[in-house]
Amino acid sequence: MPVVHSLDDLRSLMADWRKSRCSIGLVPTMGYLHEGHVSLIDRAAADNDRVVVSVFVNPTQFGAGEDLEAYPKDLPRDVALAARHGAAAVFAPAPEDMYPAGYSTYVNVEGVSAELCGRSRPIHFRGVATVCTKLFLLTGADRAYFGEKDAQQLAVIRRLVADLAIPVQIVGCPIVREADGLAKSSRNVYLTAEERAAAPILHRALEEAREKIQAGERDARTIIAFLEDRISAEPLAEIDYIQAVHRDTIVPIDRLEGPILVALAVRFGKARLIDNFSLDL
Amino acid sequence: MPVVHSLDDLRSLMADWRKSRCSIGLVPTMGYLHEGHVSLIDRAAADNDRVVVSVFVNPTQFGAGEDLEAYPKDLPRDVALAARHGAAAVFAPAPEDMYPAGYSTYVNVEGVSAELCGRSRPIHFRGVATVCTKLFLLTGADRAYFGEKDAQQLAVIRRLVADLAIPVQIVGCPIVREADGLAKSSRNVYLTAEERAAAPILHRALEEAREKIQAGERDARTIIAFLEDRISAEPLAEIDYIQAVHRDTIVPIDRLEGPILVALAVRFGKARLIDNFSLDL
Repeated sequence: MPVVHSLDDLRSLMADWRKSRCSIGLVPTMGYLHEGHVSLIDRAAADNDRVVVSVFVNPTQFGAGEDLEAYPKDLPRDVALAARHGAAAVFAPAPEDMYPAGYSTYVNVEGVSAELCGRSRPIHFRGVATVCTKLFLLTGADRAYFGEKDAQQLAVIRRLVADLAIPVQIVGCPIVREADGLAKSSRNVYLTAEERAAAPILHRALEEAREKIQAGERDARTIIAFLEDRISAEPLAEIDYIQAVHRDTIVPIDRLEGPILVALAVRFGKARLIDNFSLDL
Repeated sequence: MPVVHSLDDLRSLMADWRKSRCSIGLVPTMGYLHEGHVSLIDRAAADNDRVVVSVFVNPTQFGAGEDLEAYPKDLPRDVALAARHGAAAVFAPAPEDMYPAGYSTYVNVEGVSAELCGRSRPIHFRGVATVCTKLFLLTGADRAYFGEKDAQQLAVIRRLVADLAIPVQIVGCPIVREADGLAKSSRNVYLTAEERAAAPILHRALEEAREKIQAGERDARTIIAFLEDRISAEPLAEIDYIQAVHRDTIVPIDRLEGPILVALAVRFGKARLIDNFSLDL
């Protein structure tokens, strides 16, 4: 399976695939692949003739003081895992090839980027939207696969693709979890043993909140207060945000109606973990 | 020749062209076509199997208090002119189809957008970059044609296309002028007879400045001061800016070296006119 590094090699490989009338699935990742990514690759391989997995720790989506330098990497393992799950190529560009000297263009998705992670990571979604636009255009992919763990990212990408008329279909895939409920994340490696033992509180609390809503609760503040109580009872947890928003527009809501997203970000030591659930009410 | 209004009709027409293995040239315009636009259409028709001319007064590139409402329109005449010069389709979308409710995505080209027109029209190039990105992606054009009168726009578009890896080739075409040297512009209709008689001072002064540089002058401030003197001697002229910049990065320069652009914007009554020349020194 080829691992391509340069943009020109990627373009030429994609042109070959296109010439053979192959449909192309793209799985954009920052690498250090886990079962969540694998589920995206499996789905992409089922839907498309060819799958390309991008592995790129995108500097423009990290703010000052975030974990850009520390972000875990293991390209040989990623390549082997992608190949085993049916990827036909891995694209692993250097930052200076994606953003050469003089690079100046950024894609902003306003509104959808403002709340949740956008509050504590103000340039994050600008970086995500920019790199995904470039990956969509470089690959000419028919479909691109994103996990629902990054629910706001998924909403940003759906908005971006519709707004700019990018000819790619966006496919969201369910969150993959550890046996104890912790959402799979490359950042889970930052957790100490003690933090790792405490972190499943996020999923447990979200499940209880979901049950309350399914039992009829419709007041967002009640649900958020419940989640704050449950999670702040864990001494290792430091809440970044807990919000209830419209699933597609990411606008905060008071009353839980329509397509809703209940999302949170909580720090455990060095790890900032996110999790969520969505419901159609 | 078809005039398509909806995005879906455009997509389907472009897919037909593509299926017949036709190369596609795009000429993006705001309509009210003049000989400058016609020169772009002629060039596009010479280079490509099919040419689509877009006619769209793009609201996102007009600031508050600018001439969005007053901008001249004559679609039937534009359609006839485009057809006569070899266009195979005109795309004339409604603003609410290009920017439907909830539209949120904007493309910013930093740096290149900051000086010249970017100073007095702070959101202008964000609107230009956004609408052009969308037109490139909707048409899947192989080549797109822009006039050198809008020299900063051309630099912004070249930067955008390189940065986001949009698969379109950008072709710049020379400024087309009236017999007395005034650059053709849809906005020339705003000029009163007296203003129209005075406006050619812009080109005359730029020609004299160019001669001074070609005769060896390399100090940008000397050239700018000369242009300011010549133009402010015309009582109807109100200078917006006169600047010397690097042609590609649009960074102001003190010494005239390399690829340079000397550009100005000057108001005559209701009309804000732009003009420029560039040299490789």
